[in-house]
Amino acid sequence: MDGLTRRRFLQALGVSGGAGALLATLAANGGTAVTPPWTPPARAGRAGRSVVVLGGGIAGLTTAYELGKAGHRCTVLEARARPGGRVLTIRGGDRETDLDGHTQRAAFAYGTYFNAGAARIAPWMVTLDYCRELGVPVEVFVNSNADAFIHRSAGGAPVRFRTARADLYGYVSQLLTRVTRQGLLDAELATGGRDELLAFLREFGRLTDTGEYLGGPDRGFAVYPGADGGVPLQGPPSLSEVLTGGAGASLGFDLGFDQAMPMFQPVGGMDRIPAALARAVGEERIRLGAEVVAVTNRPDGVEVRYRQDGRAHAIVADFCVATLPPHLMARIPHNLGDDVSLALAAFRPAAAGKIGLEYASRWWETELGIYGGSTDTDLDLRQVWYPSSGFHSPRGLVVGYYNFGPDAEAYASLAPRDRAARAVSLGERIHGPRFRTELASSFSVSWSRVPHLEGAWATPPYGSPAFALLRSPAGRVLFAGDWLSHTVAWQHGAFVSARAAVTAVHERA
Amino acid sequence: MDGLTRRRFLQALGVSGGAGALLATLAANGGTAVTPPWTPPARAGRAGRSVVVLGGGIAGLTTAYELGKAGHRCTVLEARARPGGRVLTIRGGDRETDLDGHTQRAAFAYGTYFNAGAARIAPWMVTLDYCRELGVPVEVFVNSNADAFIHRSAGGAPVRFRTARADLYGYVSQLLTRVTRQGLLDAELATGGRDELLAFLREFGRLTDTGEYLGGPDRGFAVYPGADGGVPLQGPPSLSEVLTGGAGASLGFDLGFDQAMPMFQPVGGMDRIPAALARAVGEERIRLGAEVVAVTNRPDGVEVRYRQDGRAHAIVADFCVATLPPHLMARIPHNLGDDVSLALAAFRPAAAGKIGLEYASRWWETELGIYGGSTDTDLDLRQVWYPSSGFHSPRGLVVGYYNFGPDAEAYASLAPRDRAARAVSLGERIHGPRFRTELASSFSVSWSRVPHLEGAWATPPYGSPAFALLRSPAGRVLFAGDWLSHTVAWQHGAFVSARAAVTAVHERA
Repeated sequence: MDGLTRRRFLQALGVSGGAGALLATLAANGGTAVTPPWTPPARAGRAGRSVVVLGGGIAGLTTAYELGKAGHRCTVLEARARPGGRVLTIRGGDRETDLDGHTQRAAFAYGTYFNAGAARIAPWMVTLDYCRELGVPVEVFVNSNADAFIHRSAGGAPVRFRTARADLYGYVSQLLTRVTRQGLLDAELATGGRDELLAFLREFGRLTDTGEYLGGPDRGFAVYPGADGGVPLQGPPSLSEVLTGGAGASLGFDLGFDQAMPMFQPVGGMDRIPAALARAVGEERIRLGAEVVAVTNRPDGVEVRYRQDGRAHAIVADFCVATLPPHLMARIPHNLGDDVSLALAAFRPAAAGKIGLEYASRWWETELGIYGGSTDTDLDLRQVWYPSSGFHSPRGLVVGYYNFGPDAEAYASLAPRDRAARAVSLGERIHGPRFRTELASSFSVSWSRVPHLEGAWATPPYGSPAFALLRSPAGRVLFAGDWLSHTVAWQHGAFVSARAAVTAVHERA
Repeated sequence: MDGLTRRRFLQALGVSGGAGALLATLAANGGTAVTPPWTPPARAGRAGRSVVVLGGGIAGLTTAYELGKAGHRCTVLEARARPGGRVLTIRGGDRETDLDGHTQRAAFAYGTYFNAGAARIAPWMVTLDYCRELGVPVEVFVNSNADAFIHRSAGGAPVRFRTARADLYGYVSQLLTRVTRQGLLDAELATGGRDELLAFLREFGRLTDTGEYLGGPDRGFAVYPGADGGVPLQGPPSLSEVLTGGAGASLGFDLGFDQAMPMFQPVGGMDRIPAALARAVGEERIRLGAEVVAVTNRPDGVEVRYRQDGRAHAIVADFCVATLPPHLMARIPHNLGDDVSLALAAFRPAAAGKIGLEYASRWWETELGIYGGSTDTDLDLRQVWYPSSGFHSPRGLVVGYYNFGPDAEAYASLAPRDRAARAVSLGERIHGPRFRTELASSFSVSWSRVPHLEGAWATPPYGSPAFALLRSPAGRVLFAGDWLSHTVAWQHGAFVSARAAVTAVHERA
């Protein structure tokens, strides 16, 4: 880390001089919590400007929230009936109609909720900082569960993550121990570490004194120990069975910088975040059902025309911050230039889908011992999520699939009832009959078919002139959204992109 | 799994015949939740017997609870001022005096609590079943946190778990990839799996196409990505630096069958469990401050003499279930025979200690980005725990050390204020000045010095005649406790041992 970066850390930490020595060392090692630094604009006072914000998702709401704190006057235009965009939490009574005309009305019981879009927060994300600032309580989201399943359709019954992990780590450790002991890595280990490597592998792989992996308690048990010593699981399978079984592909997930445990969620549903933002912005500043139909940049202001309740409206402001999905923004007539149109069209919307399956009992807890986390399958369900809250309560909601690309498009092409039928049929193969018999209701969202969003996220053309162009103001119009950040498909990306737009607006105002 | 075991599974699941085929397969793979099976006794009606239970910890309370449900009349004698034993939660105003005469009074703010003993529950433990049955809400306990530190006093600044893990997994994968590509494992991989092994290692170790580990985003960042791409951490260190740095010893912990994530805790403090048990037993059946002084087995009953409020009392019952720590039970005069005395003396009490450090701010969240989990150090603190609940609230309690054996004995020999001074001084080395400056109050428990417990747990002589002897009735006296189970030092062990005693009493009644 160079001196400049270290100074930024220490500024962020509010320390200086000798007192910061340890913190500086910590910082150099990633030991301080460094979300991207940002200085909120100072309050503008009477000089505040008017800003029209297109889109009432996280980027739009954050833009209005931060500009409002700085003394600017914002109006948010949101085409959907509620703010939040893809931060969508479905509760009993909620109704959504998709682009194919399918209308679903959630029949969930009171207290059941379904985070159909954003669902988890990594601890380094500014999303958590906004939860703190806005008073949104958070709790742990179980992103990884040793007792959830890895399921391969060719492989018969699913295995627990803990079993697959023990077997793979065990055999990998055994193999590396063997060649290390045989001296085959002496060149690589010439500068030291041979004994430490063997000690690590022995512990990590639960190896015997002779370096063999023979299984052991960390695989899990058929009957767990108690008054007596427990009944071991069958196995372990042979080295080749473990390697060719395919479970290894599931084991790297929770090592990701954006997926490692612990992860977090707001208590009561992810939409607590946009709801808190909307309250802080002032609900009177947010126009719902307002569909933008034209954006015109002028020397003295920007005019945005929109339709609301079947009538045409126009608003003129000093600035416009456009946070609509780029592929939808590309369709709106504007005078920002052909290069802007081409740049917007360079972002590719991605398909993803989820189904919320509400159950009349929490059989995954009582029968399978699975408390949160997700099962990984090569069926087109891809992931099945178990709830991270409400443990032991009478009901619960399982995300029956979370899938992407072609899998998501396949479900999107089905009517909601057929999506549920397919999800239940496949889920039953993994979980047994309760996956069907305990089902109370369901609700599915195929993001590519949601009006005014038409995609789960938009993949940016990183490094392209198009990406750079949209990060610069187009006259009095600025763009923001997770799609303009380096953390696309995360609320974090929307927050930090909005912050950048806020700074740019404020500096010009 | 043999046919008998499979039948037990299916009985436990309440399924039979063809419907159970998948579940049977699941069961054979550990895919059903199988805590040790137990059938509660049927209600005895008028034939209920009187039982005196020695000790009001989990084993004693569970014995009284389950025997009460079966129609027996229990009296629990507990020497301490509250039930729960080592399930001890300290809140503001609580007072404890240790065997050395040190009295501490907790100055914690309202809402702060310190689980000084039992603190976590694995999802397969019957402890969770009792939480469900008793209506004790549970939440996730963060037992492993990618952002907590690994600290080695010789190594300078601490590293994050995520960084150490990425580096070790990366280099291990690189080494094994190299020898596999060189054909040095062709014999071991003759039956298949070579390509799958290479694919797994590449993903698991985040290797390049050429099989090199060069670091990458999963090590963490100096500045995390946001609007821009993020600033990488320094590093990675060299292979030998990583291997000899000592972090590997910290990485196997959360692979343990009793430690893997997710883990759980009752909302509001672990003593919610004994409190709920005590309510269910009936507080009038629990005599607090009642110190047992003699146990006499007779043909027609068992007499227990005890002291309460300075006065001598006696109680005669049909049966006695003794759940006191074995090393304390060994001191109580009885007529159960010398072999029982010798067997009790074969259990060795173990030292462990914790200190609760209440802070006036949650600096570990705001400054270090650590939300729950624990730091592992080779200082005598051993583990520093961050709270798993109350995220973002004004205050919070860090467990400044959780240590065992000689480390615990060293702290036990200090006065409470000196324990706090040492813990803060060492914790500051890892965490920086906030570890000292934000401290509000502290409370420490050295379990070997707690009256009527005198140990964190007692290590059983597994496989010995002594262990077997105490698991059989001694006349009308039966023993129970985690120390008689195969899951010592866990509430689970106390619950299952109590269940065994309950069955034995009921069958003889």
